Amino acid sequence: MRNQVRALVTSRNWEFCIISIIVLNAVTLGLETSSFMMDSIGGWLVLFDKIILGIFVVELVLRLYAHGLSFFKDPWSIFDFVIVGIALIPSSGAMSVLRSLRILRVLRLISVVPSLRRVIGGLIAALPGMGSIVVLMALVFYVFAVMATKLFGQAFPEWFGDLGASLYTLFQIMTLESWSMGIVRPVMEVFPLSWLFFVPFILCTAFTVLNLFIGIIVSAMQEEHEAEADANRQAIQDETSQILEEVKALRLELKELRGKVSEKST
Amino acid sequence: MRNQVRALVTSRNWEFCIISIIVLNAVTLGLETSSFMMDSIGGWLVLFDKIILGIFVVELVLRLYAHGLSFFKDPWSIFDFVIVGIALIPSSGAMSVLRSLRILRVLRLISVVPSLRRVIGGLIAALPGMGSIVVLMALVFYVFAVMATKLFGQAFPEWFGDLGASLYTLFQIMTLESWSMGIVRPVMEVFPLSWLFFVPFILCTAFTVLNLFIGIIVSAMQEEHEAEADANRQAIQDETSQILEEVKALRLELKELRGKVSEKST
Amino acid sequence: MRNQVRALVTSRNWEFCIISIIVLNAVTLGLETSSFMMDSIGGWLVLFDKIILGIFVVELVLRLYAHGLSFFKDPWSIFDFVIVGIALIPSSGAMSVLRSLRILRVLRLISVVPSLRRVIGGLIAALPGMGSIVVLMALVFYVFAVMATKLFGQAFPEWFGDLGASLYTLFQIMTLESWSMGIVRPVMEVFPLSWLFFVPFILCTAFTVLNLFIGIIVSAMQEEHEAEADANRQAIQDETSQILEEVKALRLELKELRGKVSEKST
Amino acid sequence: MRNQVRALVTSRNWEFCIISIIVLNAVTLGLETSSFMMDSIGGWLVLFDKIILGIFVVELVLRLYAHGLSFFKDPWSIFDFVIVGIALIPSSGAMSVLRSLRILRVLRLISVVPSLRRVIGGLIAALPGMGSIVVLMALVFYVFAVMATKLFGQAFPEWFGDLGASLYTLFQIMTLESWSMGIVRPVMEVFPLSWLFFVPFILCTAFTVLNLFIGIIVSAMQEEHEAEADANRQAIQDETSQILEEVKALRLELKELRGKVSEKST
Repeated sequence: MRNQVRALVTSRNWEFCIISIIVLNAVTLGLETSSFMMDSIGGWLVLFDKIILGIFVVELVLRLYAHGLSFFKDPWSIFDFVIVGIALIPSSGAMSVLRSLRILRVLRLISVVPSLRRVIGGLIAALPGMGSIVVLMALVFYVFAVMATKLFGQAFPEWFGDLGASLYTLFQIMTLESWSMGIVRPVMEVFPLSWLFFVPFILCTAFTVLNLFIGIIVSAMQEEHEAEADANRQAIQDETSQILEEVKALRLELKELRGKVSEKST
Repeated sequence: MRNQVRALVTSRNWEFCIISIIVLNAVTLGLETSSFMMDSIGGWLVLFDKIILGIFVVELVLRLYAHGLSFFKDPWSIFDFVIVGIALIPSSGAMSVLRSLRILRVLRLISVVPSLRRVIGGLIAALPGMGSIVVLMALVFYVFAVMATKLFGQAFPEWFGDLGASLYTLFQIMTLESWSMGIVRPVMEVFPLSWLFFVPFILCTAFTVLNLFIGIIVSAMQEEHEAEADANRQAIQDETSQILEEVKALRLELKELRGKVSEKST
Repeated sequence: MRNQVRALVTSRNWEFCIISIIVLNAVTLGLETSSFMMDSIGGWLVLFDKIILGIFVVELVLRLYAHGLSFFKDPWSIFDFVIVGIALIPSSGAMSVLRSLRILRVLRLISVVPSLRRVIGGLIAALPGMGSIVVLMALVFYVFAVMATKLFGQAFPEWFGDLGASLYTLFQIMTLESWSMGIVRPVMEVFPLSWLFFVPFILCTAFTVLNLFIGIIVSAMQEEHEAEADANRQAIQDETSQILEEVKALRLELKELRGKVSEKST
Repeated sequence: MRNQVRALVTSRNWEFCIISIIVLNAVTLGLETSSFMMDSIGGWLVLFDKIILGIFVVELVLRLYAHGLSFFKDPWSIFDFVIVGIALIPSSGAMSVLRSLRILRVLRLISVVPSLRRVIGGLIAALPGMGSIVVLMALVFYVFAVMATKLFGQAFPEWFGDLGASLYTLFQIMTLESWSMGIVRPVMEVFPLSWLFFVPFILCTAFTVLNLFIGIIVSAMQEEHEAEADANRQAIQDETSQILEEVKALRLELKELRGKVSEKST
């Protein structure tokens, strides 16, 4: 019975079914944002949403039954589990923000469609190589945020009032959004030398982001190349090995010949 | 007769003629935007435009006659067909916007000049490899747009009033245009934690665009390299093959020699 | 005499002299922008500037005399000639803007310092490969500018009033500066569907710039690699050629040996 | 005794200790930015900060004692020395800005954690290759700043009043922040042709930054490749060398054989 269930939940038809339901759910959740639609067929949409949630729960239970505890070894299964779980939390009062998280269910498409799963896998695989540079970035942000709060906090409480506000403002400055007209020019009217703080910050973060970027490109290409170069070298080595063998055999035969010639000469 | 027409429409002189007419048409359509020019020689410009349209129709009919139905197999021919077709639709009343689409005729230059056609071909060839990541991007946009509409739609109807408005605003935020001073800071005044929504969105889309970008670079370089590495390997393999042959011949000769020596010794 | 002058103007000391004078001139021209400096030592600065201009004229005359007409074959010489020429045009009345062009003389540093000349040479060498894509870009800009002028020209004369204004505004939109809050949102209040014009424009130009960029990177790397791969291949080929020669010699010797053995057996 | 101290300050436990203290100090310095924290436990924080400074001074003295004058040969040691030194300068009156520089101590993490040190080392190693292009950039900025001050200084003293203001404004324009709506459109209302100054400046700097960028990518990849290609070539060369040796030995043996055959025939 377990094997049958497992065969069912891993079949292509089942996969196709789930994809269809997710897309359908994406559409109905999109329609729910339209007040006109909610006024006319709102009840049906909510009912439909509940039915789909039910299907997802049943699917998850079947997969849990089919795979047992090894279900939790696959990160994508945990991803599905959490997303369906969020939708089951009663969303009243202060938790009403959870209602809007229902749309995250659409992200289940990623865990179901193999090509999307590969893309995300690739993105995540690129992360570890970025570790050191991300730590460095965090350090730079923290140091500049503490300094900005100390230096400009009292004069510009909205932008640099506390550590959080400073971090947010520095993030905005890093994206170059209104950094000069919006933030630095007003600050320079009070602290004329504050450009000595902000211009190096921009250069620093731009340079770090650039290096993060280059690191990813280089490692992506290196992988490509290693595979290619390996194949390339293999083809040549195959032939040189063949030559080496031939030459060795040749030498052996020559030895024998010499032996014979010597034999006769004695 | 058909072959003659085909020879005519594919000749270099004909091509040169068409390019000249397109460039001339580009200039007259540009002049039409100037009200001073329209006041003084507007009638001539409109007349000239109609003559050129006539020439294009004649050219298209000739090409249709010359190539028959295989005309529609070439995407560039369909491109020309559609662009000339647009100009023939009567543009009155609600369709007056079509009049401004006449300038699209200048894009025929792309289908006529081979080097431009190649560039566009290269751009289009890069698209399929981007498929998965574009789908992923669309998914991220859709999910965030539905959430934004639910969360901020009532408080900020201009930016997040419906799904379309949210999608547009999120596109603006992705391009980093006024994202903080223009959108997120005002939103944060009502929802202080909304940066938890927008900053991850920016990081997400920036990271995805970055990967799209890297994917294109890597695949562009890979192609270049494969061609180059192939040539490289070929040159070396040619020589190793030559050596292998020589060594084999050598071995054969040695065998014969051994045969002779053995013959004599018996 | 001519050879002596040529030896002089191409000597390292002379080069060092000219570099010093250019740097000095850069400083005095910088000081001229300060009204305080002009009030106190303005006369000296202007006098000094005239003396330096005189030195440059003398240097140019010497180089013209030394190299004769071949002087005009070197683009950098023409560059120097034009820059010094600009400074000699009397700058009164409507031409007063020419006075501020005197600072261009500092760019002579590029033509004098070899490493800078190489960098500029590299930048210019990258240009031809960009030809087609730049033509394409110009085409896209022209088509969109004509359409924008026709569609939005009457409602927004400041931004799309004539072809020039439209081209400038589209350039601004391409750089993503205030494209949405500054331009497109106001336009959308009059033409709600205008995002159908601007968003594709942004995607189009972003994609084209991206490809321009990738083209440059790929061709830069290709050059690097070709050189490297050539050296690599050479090293291997040298050795395989050596082997081939050895094997051929071996075969010859074996032939002789066979000859001898056959001789004896007869 | 000196060796014992050296063993101590280079031990892993000591390193771990210092990292912990730095992180702890980072947290307390962060807490000092919160006025609520300063009101409740401000005294403790300041005391704690002084104790940590003391530990750092002791650590530095120990390392100085352990390594002697060779301490100053390691740039990271000088980095630590300067950062601790800044904290020891009395920060009263005009120097109160130095108090906020205490957070720079957190940057000591970079000198202590090896992986961060490597990243920074990599960034610094990329700098020399950028030399020429940075000089070129500085030249372009200086030339445009002098011109802007002369041309627009009187009409827009806030943006182009003196050389410093012009340099800052041009830096802002290079980052594309509000360049058009904020700066160039207002300037164009007074000087309608000023776009002839600013648009080339943007294209110039964008192109130079692009080349800086490409240069770094290309050199980063080149290094990767050289190492890889070397390994690749080595593997092939090892085998070809082996073949060459075998063939040479073969030829020697053949010579001997010929000698024997000739011997007998005489």
